[in-house]
Amino acid sequence: MNYRMIFNTIGKVAIVLAILLVIPAVLALCLGESSWWAIAITVGISLVIGLVLWLCVKPKNKVIFSKEGLVIVSLAWIYVSAIGALPFVISREIPSYIDAFFEMCSGFSTTGATILTGDQINAMYETSKGLLFWRSFTHWIGGMGVVVFLMAFETGSSDRGMHMLRAEMPGPIVDKIVPRARNTAKILYLLYIGFTVAEIVALIIAGACSNMPIGENIFDSIVHSFGTAGTGGFGVRADSIAGYSAAHQWIISVFMILFGINFNLYYLILLRKFRSAFGSRELWIFGGVIVVASTAVAINLGLSNLPFTQNAHDATRHAIFQVASFISTTGYSTIPSYSSINEFPLLSKGILFLLMFIGGCAGSTGGGLKVSRVAILGCAVRRELRRVLHPRNANAVKFEGKNLTDETLHGVTSYFGLYMLIIAAVFVVLSFDKGSADFPLSVEANITAAVSCMNNIGPAYGAPASGYFMYNWASKLVMSFAMLIGRLEIYPILLTLSPTTWIKNR
Amino acid sequence: MNYRMIFNTIGKVAIVLAILLVIPAVLALCLGESSWWAIAITVGISLVIGLVLWLCVKPKNKVIFSKEGLVIVSLAWIYVSAIGALPFVISREIPSYIDAFFEMCSGFSTTGATILTGDQINAMYETSKGLLFWRSFTHWIGGMGVVVFLMAFETGSSDRGMHMLRAEMPGPIVDKIVPRARNTAKILYLLYIGFTVAEIVALIIAGACSNMPIGENIFDSIVHSFGTAGTGGFGVRADSIAGYSAAHQWIISVFMILFGINFNLYYLILLRKFRSAFGSRELWIFGGVIVVASTAVAINLGLSNLPFTQNAHDATRHAIFQVASFISTTGYSTIPSYSSINEFPLLSKGILFLLMFIGGCAGSTGGGLKVSRVAILGCAVRRELRRVLHPRNANAVKFEGKNLTDETLHGVTSYFGLYMLIIAAVFVVLSFDKGSADFPLSVEANITAAVSCMNNIGPAYGAPASGYFMYNWASKLVMSFAMLIGRLEIYPILLTLSPTTWIKNR
Repeated sequence: MNYRMIFNTIGKVAIVLAILLVIPAVLALCLGESSWWAIAITVGISLVIGLVLWLCVKPKNKVIFSKEGLVIVSLAWIYVSAIGALPFVISREIPSYIDAFFEMCSGFSTTGATILTGDQINAMYETSKGLLFWRSFTHWIGGMGVVVFLMAFETGSSDRGMHMLRAEMPGPIVDKIVPRARNTAKILYLLYIGFTVAEIVALIIAGACSNMPIGENIFDSIVHSFGTAGTGGFGVRADSIAGYSAAHQWIISVFMILFGINFNLYYLILLRKFRSAFGSRELWIFGGVIVVASTAVAINLGLSNLPFTQNAHDATRHAIFQVASFISTTGYSTIPSYSSINEFPLLSKGILFLLMFIGGCAGSTGGGLKVSRVAILGCAVRRELRRVLHPRNANAVKFEGKNLTDETLHGVTSYFGLYMLIIAAVFVVLSFDKGSADFPLSVEANITAAVSCMNNIGPAYGAPASGYFMYNWASKLVMSFAMLIGRLEIYPILLTLSPTTWIKNR
Repeated sequence: MNYRMIFNTIGKVAIVLAILLVIPAVLALCLGESSWWAIAITVGISLVIGLVLWLCVKPKNKVIFSKEGLVIVSLAWIYVSAIGALPFVISREIPSYIDAFFEMCSGFSTTGATILTGDQINAMYETSKGLLFWRSFTHWIGGMGVVVFLMAFETGSSDRGMHMLRAEMPGPIVDKIVPRARNTAKILYLLYIGFTVAEIVALIIAGACSNMPIGENIFDSIVHSFGTAGTGGFGVRADSIAGYSAAHQWIISVFMILFGINFNLYYLILLRKFRSAFGSRELWIFGGVIVVASTAVAINLGLSNLPFTQNAHDATRHAIFQVASFISTTGYSTIPSYSSINEFPLLSKGILFLLMFIGGCAGSTGGGLKVSRVAILGCAVRRELRRVLHPRNANAVKFEGKNLTDETLHGVTSYFGLYMLIIAAVFVVLSFDKGSADFPLSVEANITAAVSCMNNIGPAYGAPASGYFMYNWASKLVMSFAMLIGRLEIYPILLTLSPTTWIKNR
């Protein structure tokens, strides 16, 4: 293990975090909010930690192997969540450190689960816009990756980042778009920024059309775009997106789907390789699932007598929004505050529950198992079926035009096993919890909470608008790690927590 | 495909079914119950079908390959469920054929899910003991296997049954105990009969001690022993085992655990190979899970203020009984009728839910994934973890002292994927259901119902005492097949339902 290189890189991450925190600090200062100094203190802390690590721990060699890459990535994520939580604690907006840590793990992992109640969010909107901005900004940073961000904008770095790129980019198979990992990171971030700006502009126009006050319009558009881009889902209102106009909701629906698609495809489109881009099997499966699920949910909502779906347009809009929100693992909601997802008819709840597992495409900012992994799982199952039924015909399995190796198939099926075991373990821990008097927990609430955290979605079927305030500190801590484990696809965090990583040196 | 051999064997199964049905017919006749003729008619129908198939479809050769073996087994199971349902329909005790088919699939697959309400069961206990006997008898037949039964008692058959033995015996790896499949089947059935008789005797003694009327005592002891032996769970009272003495409950607890253990181990003990028997890793895992889960549930029940667990003995008894019932996939319950499993504290509900997936040992009558399959899944996950973390050290994985082949590991992980996909599919179908006014369905009820049917357990968290009466016919039909799919471990039924099996001849 190249310890020096690890801690040196964490030092750089700490410096980047400090720089990023300057933005909400300045915003808070401009708006005259008292929380600016809480953010400023955190900038100072992270800057000191960063400079100490960066300047004092000079690596003897810069070689990074797969193992170091995984450890760097998970330590970086734990670091940004742990330090990113400080402004909330220092400003007393979230007095408990564990709550703030949960909120930041949820932010960076793009989950969108929150320990704030609706009232607390509404109150912060009045007094602490800077902190709300920071909360949503973490979605945007976490969506594309903390270390990828560092790689994309660090000048003069050599090309040793592929291991880290692979650890942060979701999906069963990660390819570089261009030969150099650093350029890949840069292209991805430029596309990401482009889409985010497009969404901000679209939302501002929608806000202007519905006569929102200008400051509010710009602020809301930016934070919601951050939440969509990272497929996170932190809102700035108690009822998420329900209070905005239909135009807002449609725009966010479209962008949630766009951010759930593999970014490599956009690059291919830029290169005018339309055939490759639109020939992606994963894209068609993703689109197909969205169409089928939206249709089913829309009909189901239309036929049920919910107060907020009185006509076909409403039912369609809510259906597409919720389906896009769940499959892209964003977690925004258009369900009015007097209602909750628990009032949805059973079929819709069931479909949305299953969408949680699928998640976005590989190489998108979405969480979940990823469409391609589910598809490869299907291929593995089909191959095993064929093997059992016709033992003598051992056929190769193809996906995206390539033969799948045994290693890939085995990797995906074992990943699925491990993934379900972790969900089961989280579920058992949550079962120890009793919840609060107003929000008692149930098996349904705990299952959906475990699945929701592990897949970085946000909403569970226990409380309105992704609220997790009723859980105790132990549950919150376990869910915090579940969110990071889910975002980094299990192995990096497990490796970092495993003692053998640090003791043996093989 | 050797069609003639397939249908010839189904003919024999039909004759065996007719012979077995004579027992409840005679019982009903002796008790002077009107339903005896309904059973007698069914005996006639199955006898005619059986004789026609057996005598008219003479196989040209008796060679059976794996594929034929799987098809024979699944057709046999569908046949016995379809015909075994007739007495209930003819006697109008269960007027709907789909309900009766569900009940028989539940019986033969040793699930124990019932469409009868508690009142209906109590009423049948007064007027139709013969049919109740048949209902529980199907558990006993299904526990060890329908075709295995045929193999064990058919004289003069050659030794071509290993494929069928393998299809009916649960678990990832099936070994013959002795070189000839037929002798293996015979040994297994003799052990099975021995244990069943032991339980009947124990229960009769317990009944005598608690002054039960002699006829009732004998009848109840026999049917409950059938239910335990097959790890089925059909009871003859509305409140399952809750109304019986603590001695009854302890006896059934012990036997549920015994029937959840690999029968090969008992044979090893008979051969005085104690070291091999008690060296079984699966046995220790099974025992360990029971001890840990019972302790947790007992403490949890003891600390919660349920009316039926006022002292430590009650809490321990209920905890061990429910844990044994869920992990062995029996599904009996000691929860008094004024209460339901839904009132259990969350932790206990959560633990029991997870036990559903594990199930009994391979080679036992229990359902579920099987302990050894879960253990091998764990090995596969560990190996994949090692591969990701230390790519250069490719270590072999051992279980029960043997190296696991890639094929076994891949088989188990793919099986798990397929298994979860089927549960998800059943769950979606159930989500279309609205339930009844008294028993509205919920996501929790539907998830537990899908898991319960697929793992052949019985109880779900939606209604008391394994009741499924609130589902509509489509749900019941899907659950019927889910139970058979679960009992035969997926592939036989899928193969039989796949058109390519019947068209192509490769």
